[in-house]
Amino acid sequence: MRRSIATVCLSGTLEEKLEAAAAAGFDGVELFENDLVGSPLPPSEARRRADDLGLAIDLYQPFRDFEAVPPDVLARNLRRAEAKFAVMEQLGAPMMLVCSNVSPDAIDDDALAAEQLHALAARAAEWGVRVAYEALAWGRHVNEYDHSWRIAQAAGHPALGVCLDSFHILSRGTDLGAIAQIPAEKLFYLQLADAPRLAMDVLQWSRHYRCFPGQGGFDLAGFVQRVLGAGYDGPLSLEVFNDVFRQADPDRTAIDAMRSLVVLEDRLGLTPLPPAAALAGYAFVELGVDAESAPATEALLRSMGFVHVGPHRSKPVQLWEHGDTRIVLNHGAGDDDPEVVAIAVESEDPGRSAERAEALLAPVLERRRDPGEAELAAVAAPDDTSVFFCRTARSDGWLADFVALGADGNRDRGAPVPIRRVDHIALAQPFESFDEAVLFYGAVLGLEPTDSQDLASPDGLVRSRAVASRDGGVRFALNVPALASPLHGQAELQHVAFACDDALAAARAMRDRGVPLLPIPENYYDDLQARIELDPELLAALRELGVLYDRSARGELLHFYTARIGGRVFFEVLERRGAYERYGAVNSPVRMAAQRAAITPVA
Amino acid sequence: MRRSIATVCLSGTLEEKLEAAAAAGFDGVELFENDLVGSPLPPSEARRRADDLGLAIDLYQPFRDFEAVPPDVLARNLRRAEAKFAVMEQLGAPMMLVCSNVSPDAIDDDALAAEQLHALAARAAEWGVRVAYEALAWGRHVNEYDHSWRIAQAAGHPALGVCLDSFHILSRGTDLGAIAQIPAEKLFYLQLADAPRLAMDVLQWSRHYRCFPGQGGFDLAGFVQRVLGAGYDGPLSLEVFNDVFRQADPDRTAIDAMRSLVVLEDRLGLTPLPPAAALAGYAFVELGVDAESAPATEALLRSMGFVHVGPHRSKPVQLWEHGDTRIVLNHGAGDDDPEVVAIAVESEDPGRSAERAEALLAPVLERRRDPGEAELAAVAAPDDTSVFFCRTARSDGWLADFVALGADGNRDRGAPVPIRRVDHIALAQPFESFDEAVLFYGAVLGLEPTDSQDLASPDGLVRSRAVASRDGGVRFALNVPALASPLHGQAELQHVAFACDDALAAARAMRDRGVPLLPIPENYYDDLQARIELDPELLAALRELGVLYDRSARGELLHFYTARIGGRVFFEVLERRGAYERYGAVNSPVRMAAQRAAITPVA
Repeated sequence: MRRSIATVCLSGTLEEKLEAAAAAGFDGVELFENDLVGSPLPPSEARRRADDLGLAIDLYQPFRDFEAVPPDVLARNLRRAEAKFAVMEQLGAPMMLVCSNVSPDAIDDDALAAEQLHALAARAAEWGVRVAYEALAWGRHVNEYDHSWRIAQAAGHPALGVCLDSFHILSRGTDLGAIAQIPAEKLFYLQLADAPRLAMDVLQWSRHYRCFPGQGGFDLAGFVQRVLGAGYDGPLSLEVFNDVFRQADPDRTAIDAMRSLVVLEDRLGLTPLPPAAALAGYAFVELGVDAESAPATEALLRSMGFVHVGPHRSKPVQLWEHGDTRIVLNHGAGDDDPEVVAIAVESEDPGRSAERAEALLAPVLERRRDPGEAELAAVAAPDDTSVFFCRTARSDGWLADFVALGADGNRDRGAPVPIRRVDHIALAQPFESFDEAVLFYGAVLGLEPTDSQDLASPDGLVRSRAVASRDGGVRFALNVPALASPLHGQAELQHVAFACDDALAAARAMRDRGVPLLPIPENYYDDLQARIELDPELLAALRELGVLYDRSARGELLHFYTARIGGRVFFEVLERRGAYERYGAVNSPVRMAAQRAAITPVA
Repeated sequence: MRRSIATVCLSGTLEEKLEAAAAAGFDGVELFENDLVGSPLPPSEARRRADDLGLAIDLYQPFRDFEAVPPDVLARNLRRAEAKFAVMEQLGAPMMLVCSNVSPDAIDDDALAAEQLHALAARAAEWGVRVAYEALAWGRHVNEYDHSWRIAQAAGHPALGVCLDSFHILSRGTDLGAIAQIPAEKLFYLQLADAPRLAMDVLQWSRHYRCFPGQGGFDLAGFVQRVLGAGYDGPLSLEVFNDVFRQADPDRTAIDAMRSLVVLEDRLGLTPLPPAAALAGYAFVELGVDAESAPATEALLRSMGFVHVGPHRSKPVQLWEHGDTRIVLNHGAGDDDPEVVAIAVESEDPGRSAERAEALLAPVLERRRDPGEAELAAVAAPDDTSVFFCRTARSDGWLADFVALGADGNRDRGAPVPIRRVDHIALAQPFESFDEAVLFYGAVLGLEPTDSQDLASPDGLVRSRAVASRDGGVRFALNVPALASPLHGQAELQHVAFACDDALAAARAMRDRGVPLLPIPENYYDDLQARIELDPELLAALRELGVLYDRSARGELLHFYTARIGGRVFFEVLERRGAYERYGAVNSPVRMAAQRAAITPVA
């Protein structure tokens, strides 16, 4: 199907918007009137630019408060419409979007609305264009799609049909049954937007919080399925008002938008993607360090029970292991504090994973590789983290790229630390690419997002959203400051969480081995005791070791944290008891306050 | 009256919050439980810190979901309460806040709620503390203050009273008549918060958008008057959940908070401020320039019809005049692009203006002054703009500090430009101090704020709010990006708007004199013609000269803009016809798009 995007989804000038839409591969745009009015390009020149870029101008929008008005207002509105039809002719735009009247002066009279829309459609036909009538969710009298269709039907003009907008329909929870009753030739246009489920005035919700399909909480696939089932064959067109996208890089936003349609068309079975390969956890996490931060990072890993396996054959990279849990230290990647620079997942089919990522417009990373070294497919995530697809169990060879040191020199001799694997990775996202990141990690790796939540830190609210595989083998916690701010140090944090079978034993072992752990306030345990009647022995152990506790309907979580290495990175060790499925977010404010209070990071 | 602030209003650690509250002069705090739980300070130590700082801990809050529960839950809740009473004893906190139950499991039974609150109050009394019961606006069954009072009355325990919270009451528009019926000794506590009027779920509204009295749309003075009238004599206590304040500098926020109470107490007649002196417009606007930007700035002023009167006697400052409209160029203030560094208003009593500003916690600026030079009172606004109070008409002497050049050399010889005075000044505000700035300019200068509006720029939404004197002689437009962002160049702009009697003549004169004017797209005029039936001659003139147009119920606005000097500053010239009272915000998106499209600023 053709893919379109409304210019209002993108920041910048009209030219920048058109270029971004074309570069992302869209076939057309909905031209938002304000983008033309504010542009020095005459309409004919805007059309030429779009043509040159291979973009059609599918829709000119919006025309407001037209119908169900007194005769004098109608005369003015028809005059205004004529001026816009003239603009559309120069633009080569074949369709005008007319939104249901929101004016308090609109008359509640469907017959009058139909009659006046018929008059408009007749004028449109003279210009050789069509009119798509759309029920806004906050229309004065017409705010449901079936109502707009009844009026269009009554108007009975071939140049008049309806535009269906997923937001206006799904935000009100309107029954979708009537879609099937609209004749295919009257389904003039389809606008798509997702949105997080918010308890909010629908106009504010629509104007500020829409997002691309798959980034919110609506069932876009189910909705579009019905519209296609009714015979719609026009473009799938994105119309998203979003305060963040309005200020983000339009090139990135356009790619994010296109990715959302690729995912949607896959779900609809229109253009199937290579299926996501099953993931069996993480192959490794790569930390970038520099000369200054490397010793403290190595010391921390060693004290946590990791051993240095050896260096890479050709790169300034070290492999560290703790059983099957692997950390790669990259001495060439960081020129600053330590940070997570790459993540490798265990894919049952790395080739297919990479194909899927590429089909989802993930930037493929070209990597320098010496003869005989393993070829690992990798893509760049929106936050610039590299994502690798490995199959360690099948010996895809990446481990062989490391030269093993003598076993004797680097065996761990301390009390055993029962770390089993990487449980999840928490990554701070750039403010402008949070929704993009959720969609990217979710779609590329085949993970499911949870709802987002706001967590109070001493420096402001942190928004957090998890994406996880169904079996919990791969999980990411994506974090962003709720409001962008230069003050927002805490929202820059990254951490790797290791799963273990006995968090109390792990904490005790790590404490005894000298791991610098994050001190948790006594007040936390007093409050925990007041909130939850824990076994006094357990409570005493948690308190002694600085282990945090959470409980859900499905199980319990015990978890603790190391101090930070550099300003940004720290480790978590956790034990999931029963089927505990969450991330202990209830304890995040305490963790963040403790991190703020902790005077010095390790390095 | 005593003044308190909830720790949740401020960012940082508990210690930082206490220090900020004390430094701003508060008498006490409401200690928010999470701030204690996340703190390494034991309660007794927190009390000691507060004591040392001269702060009482007036309230411990909140205790949630206590009442109207089944017996087994009650037993758990009483156990939890006992733990909190123990904490309060260490804190020296005399009162616990209990919020009405929001749990879906709460039982709709006032008698049961009363009985259980009686039981809680009886325990509290044993600890020597009291319980303030508050109706949350989203309480499950109890969400109106009169309802919470009926339950407290039925409970009939001396240690149980009510807490009134302005947000919960005013957000619902509850009738305030019943406040007078609550006995004074049962009015245990008063929490104050303002909020912008938003169409939004009340819980989200409360948790994210509260602000300090005078910053929102509620009538706080009228509300507090009633509570005081009923005999309340406890603290005026601010409890504001605000996403921006959560991440702002707590010291600044605390002063902003205190300022809001100073204003409120003035309005209530409790602690009168020196009345705001009448303002008769602007004495001057001072632009900081550096060696690089000075020539272009001077050339622009000259081409706009300003003449260089002469230099300051002792400072690297020049006076430029256009009739009584004065610009001061400060060659020592800027080391970057030109910017507005000071504003001087014409006060009928500069001394009283300065006293009022000082009483409102405005930082008084110490200025270097040579013998014989005028003494001008000045304070610093939140955005670091200096605000001077002058009385040029009475010859307060500031003009005499400038050495007049020979009249001949600097007379303006071009076509006359009909600029009359400064109309308003638009200042971009730092993201974290927007509400503070509205309150500051409003209270210090005695100006009234308008509602804020969001304006679409190519780089994102810009939030704009005007504050103006009743006669319109002094007006500020305060702007801030709706979301903070490093990309947000457009929200950094400042401009000075000059009023004239004939904008078309002014535009023509300035064009002929070579003033670089901001080009306005043809599309704007095509749309204007479609929207509004203007006289064709007027439309042609607007189009020819790049003048923008707006119309309100009270009059018309014609306005145009110069190109920017440096990246940040530009000028506007406007003509208010009739009683047009606004700022042409409807044209701001076009202006901002044109500025984005304009390739090069003047300097």
